[in-house]
Amino acid sequence: MIDTLTDTDGFSIAGVELGSRLIMGTGGAPSLEGLEAALVASGTALTTVAMRRYAVGSTTGSAGPGSTSGISGANAGSNLFAVLLANNIRVLPNTAGCFTAREALMTAELAREALETDWVKLEVIADEHTLLPDAVELVEATEQLVNRGFKVFAYTNDDPVLALRLEQLGAAAVMPLGAPIGTGLGILNPHNIELIVSRANVPVVLDAGIGTASDAALAMELGCDAVLLASAVTRAQDPVRMAEAFKHAVIGGRLAAQAGRIPKRAHALASSAMEGRPDL
Amino acid sequence: MIDTLTDTDGFSIAGVELGSRLIMGTGGAPSLEGLEAALVASGTALTTVAMRRYAVGSTTGSAGPGSTSGISGANAGSNLFAVLLANNIRVLPNTAGCFTAREALMTAELAREALETDWVKLEVIADEHTLLPDAVELVEATEQLVNRGFKVFAYTNDDPVLALRLEQLGAAAVMPLGAPIGTGLGILNPHNIELIVSRANVPVVLDAGIGTASDAALAMELGCDAVLLASAVTRAQDPVRMAEAFKHAVIGGRLAAQAGRIPKRAHALASSAMEGRPDL
Amino acid sequence: MIDTLTDTDGFSIAGVELGSRLIMGTGGAPSLEGLEAALVASGTALTTVAMRRYAVGSTTGSAGPGSTSGISGANAGSNLFAVLLANNIRVLPNTAGCFTAREALMTAELAREALETDWVKLEVIADEHTLLPDAVELVEATEQLVNRGFKVFAYTNDDPVLALRLEQLGAAAVMPLGAPIGTGLGILNPHNIELIVSRANVPVVLDAGIGTASDAALAMELGCDAVLLASAVTRAQDPVRMAEAFKHAVIGGRLAAQAGRIPKRAHALASSAMEGRPDL
Amino acid sequence: MIDTLTDTDGFSIAGVELGSRLIMGTGGAPSLEGLEAALVASGTALTTVAMRRYAVGSTTGSAGPGSTSGISGANAGSNLFAVLLANNIRVLPNTAGCFTAREALMTAELAREALETDWVKLEVIADEHTLLPDAVELVEATEQLVNRGFKVFAYTNDDPVLALRLEQLGAAAVMPLGAPIGTGLGILNPHNIELIVSRANVPVVLDAGIGTASDAALAMELGCDAVLLASAVTRAQDPVRMAEAFKHAVIGGRLAAQAGRIPKRAHALASSAMEGRPDL
Repeated sequence: MIDTLTDTDGFSIAGVELGSRLIMGTGGAPSLEGLEAALVASGTALTTVAMRRYAVGSTTGSAGPGSTSGISGANAGSNLFAVLLANNIRVLPNTAGCFTAREALMTAELAREALETDWVKLEVIADEHTLLPDAVELVEATEQLVNRGFKVFAYTNDDPVLALRLEQLGAAAVMPLGAPIGTGLGILNPHNIELIVSRANVPVVLDAGIGTASDAALAMELGCDAVLLASAVTRAQDPVRMAEAFKHAVIGGRLAAQAGRIPKRAHALASSAMEGRPDL
Repeated sequence: MIDTLTDTDGFSIAGVELGSRLIMGTGGAPSLEGLEAALVASGTALTTVAMRRYAVGSTTGSAGPGSTSGISGANAGSNLFAVLLANNIRVLPNTAGCFTAREALMTAELAREALETDWVKLEVIADEHTLLPDAVELVEATEQLVNRGFKVFAYTNDDPVLALRLEQLGAAAVMPLGAPIGTGLGILNPHNIELIVSRANVPVVLDAGIGTASDAALAMELGCDAVLLASAVTRAQDPVRMAEAFKHAVIGGRLAAQAGRIPKRAHALASSAMEGRPDL
Repeated sequence: MIDTLTDTDGFSIAGVELGSRLIMGTGGAPSLEGLEAALVASGTALTTVAMRRYAVGSTTGSAGPGSTSGISGANAGSNLFAVLLANNIRVLPNTAGCFTAREALMTAELAREALETDWVKLEVIADEHTLLPDAVELVEATEQLVNRGFKVFAYTNDDPVLALRLEQLGAAAVMPLGAPIGTGLGILNPHNIELIVSRANVPVVLDAGIGTASDAALAMELGCDAVLLASAVTRAQDPVRMAEAFKHAVIGGRLAAQAGRIPKRAHALASSAMEGRPDL
Repeated sequence: MIDTLTDTDGFSIAGVELGSRLIMGTGGAPSLEGLEAALVASGTALTTVAMRRYAVGSTTGSAGPGSTSGISGANAGSNLFAVLLANNIRVLPNTAGCFTAREALMTAELAREALETDWVKLEVIADEHTLLPDAVELVEATEQLVNRGFKVFAYTNDDPVLALRLEQLGAAAVMPLGAPIGTGLGILNPHNIELIVSRANVPVVLDAGIGTASDAALAMELGCDAVLLASAVTRAQDPVRMAEAFKHAVIGGRLAAQAGRIPKRAHALASSAMEGRPDL
């Protein structure tokens, strides 16, 4: 029984069993080789890919408009998908860079066609400065995507009311942020995350803001079902090592959530009984 | 190289290489069987045992005065030591329950004789209510124990000045608390722990106050060399699972500390470049 | 100049100059006398009144359906308004207890007719358990109320995107929560409040969650223009004293925000120079 | 009764009634005029002066070795003391810059002779980098100063054990730090401050680390009897305004501590009853 503990409990999302509760984004990686190594080290079974970066046609190899730098562009895209396929990592296309429900819908449709998946991580952001979700457009887009048969993974702020509404509209998972994208500030409002978890009937994935391993462990302890992160790994000084760090942190946090932690106490409590001490 | 990452870097203390950065206390365990399972699940290579609980003669089987309840007492002691031996876990006797340098010295000498080790975790507490270390007695006891040839693992408050002084007096390791014993409050003053680490030339072990996995990960991220905990595991609802949680959290936190986390930023930063987006 | 500092800078909202940056709600007060004493002690110049509590007709003395307990009901209402008039405290009717934009609109219209004011604090909550604002209904209600000529003081969550949208829709003030109503948890996410303030061109009033004086001071230091609270005073053990506490805390926090605090430093800095010390 | 609330309860220390719970240091002030204005704006009745800065002979006008810059030196000293006398502000000489009990004793004796006061704020720091108190030297110095008839105001770290010991040795007040001197980090470990307060029978003064008004209010809410600060005012962009801010914050925090705050609740609580709402 002890030896089976390393394998944490199963985790399924949108009807698919995943072997890891760590979901890794691909943004920010300086090279495809580095990205692959980090993905493998993380143990992830699901990764997000920005459709507006790996543009249409990327699976067929034609260069897209975003192909000017780094690992972006069409060839990069086809290479990336080959890498994911080789490592048995499922693709979750996202709508990063979309500002309206309309843009998000078009992006999701392109992703479905190109990648043959009805999964989509829905990002509808309000502006380029905060990268925060736009609640009104998000609600609109979720409703329409669900109606069109998508499995919607809704990236949202940490508003418990909005999270519940997204679930009621049919989202397959709600993905509240811990802090704004790329800040590494961790979980700014654990109270809200706990409240979201306590009322959710779909998986809750902590998304955005994660900076280091303890942040991910805390997310799991608050009751989240999984953690999604990208730049915390891809922009770390040693991405592969950091990916490994998160793998352990997510497992550790999940186990702790299940194990039933000791209550917080205002006053000390001896671990060894004080009475009956031998008189030396 | 990826596959070797699971094995974190080596950790040696008082000249001995240890296979784990998680040190587990035995206090608070309801049964010897449960304790053994938790110790094994934690992967620990070093465990603290309260000498005033497992009294003199415990290795020879004669009943001591503390043998009235639980797994304490002499027979319990000999059984415990057998369990530790069988699992290849080194013993670190502690002076829990000592209020003065004089008491601590006597307890350490008894431990050295009974257990044939010159290692001692030095606890000199001020009172039964706070269980906080007494700085003045601690300094006195450290000086004398070092003079007598002990390897002193000094349990201390989180005062950076005191920690440095204990090292200068010859302590083999300094063990600042995160919060008072048994409170599960985590690390109340991370700033002090960072300061202690930044000036230490001996291992720093975060001791006391740990409540859950993210606390342990944070301790490692702050630069601690190891974490010591007892009741966070032994009093958890599922001690074995919690032990496993801490095993992962300590590994994850250590890897994160080495990997070089992203800086905290006040403002958002896109993981995918925004420029050059295709116009949909 | 020193003696003029006690009078902080002017504060105007919806075109009206107010003599205090502390806005006090009336909810939770056990008696009208106690409420009056607390209002006066707080120095407030503006108070919120729940229209669904002090029902239509309250200014004419006819009993309303809510008149069953405490100081609620129509006679209570007329007495309350007399007290406010006598103390020169302006009334800000709120739509507490409304769950939809439609309900809020009706309540606001009733308030305008009964109290002859076009000011309304807009509360549209999602459910009775969290009492959190419903973003979608709030946007809808703000738009319609502005179109009907109301001065809308929009109670909102701490989402910076929503706050900006409410301003763009014409809200006279945005009122983000620090924490859910009545919790006394303070400001759970100071980062969001700062972000809201940094982008706002209408007054930002910290509303809900305030528990004690330091919470209110912090709100002002984060750049809020005012603080609104009710139960932190009315349910305190000594409401009059607590009202006085908040009066000072808001003034102190405002002055501190203007005075330009010292930066936070990781390392110590002597206030007295160390060099040139006499050799004793 | 309301109008008497502005005058908070009396505060006496070492047998002397003081008209303010804000104690202000003089370190860091760029000019004597600015310092005087800030002292007056703060409303303080007690101020600390570094004896090693205003060297021996300062009251007689002979230049000391520290007189090279700013307002330090002997003439500066005599001017400063004239200012304090004119404003009816009592002097509390401190031993800033002393690293040993012996140095502190000599400095205190010089202060007693020069300033004709047996009050001394005892600072014995461990090093110039952290400026943290040295617990062992502090205990030694307190004992000796008390024996020589001094009223010792002991600047200490936030260790509850050390604070209690200083009181038992006869300190007139214990003055735990919130954070290292000059950092402006606020109160890093509120738990320890609360514990110190709960066991103290002499005044507890929060000393060092204060950055802004809400920090001071929090100190008072935690139960401290007074707050001491220097650079938070003297190094603020507008020292006079910041002094005024702290005056209000300390009064507000003290009133809040007396008024009995509402408990923190995990879940929302309506300030207006929800039942009995009119059906609109």
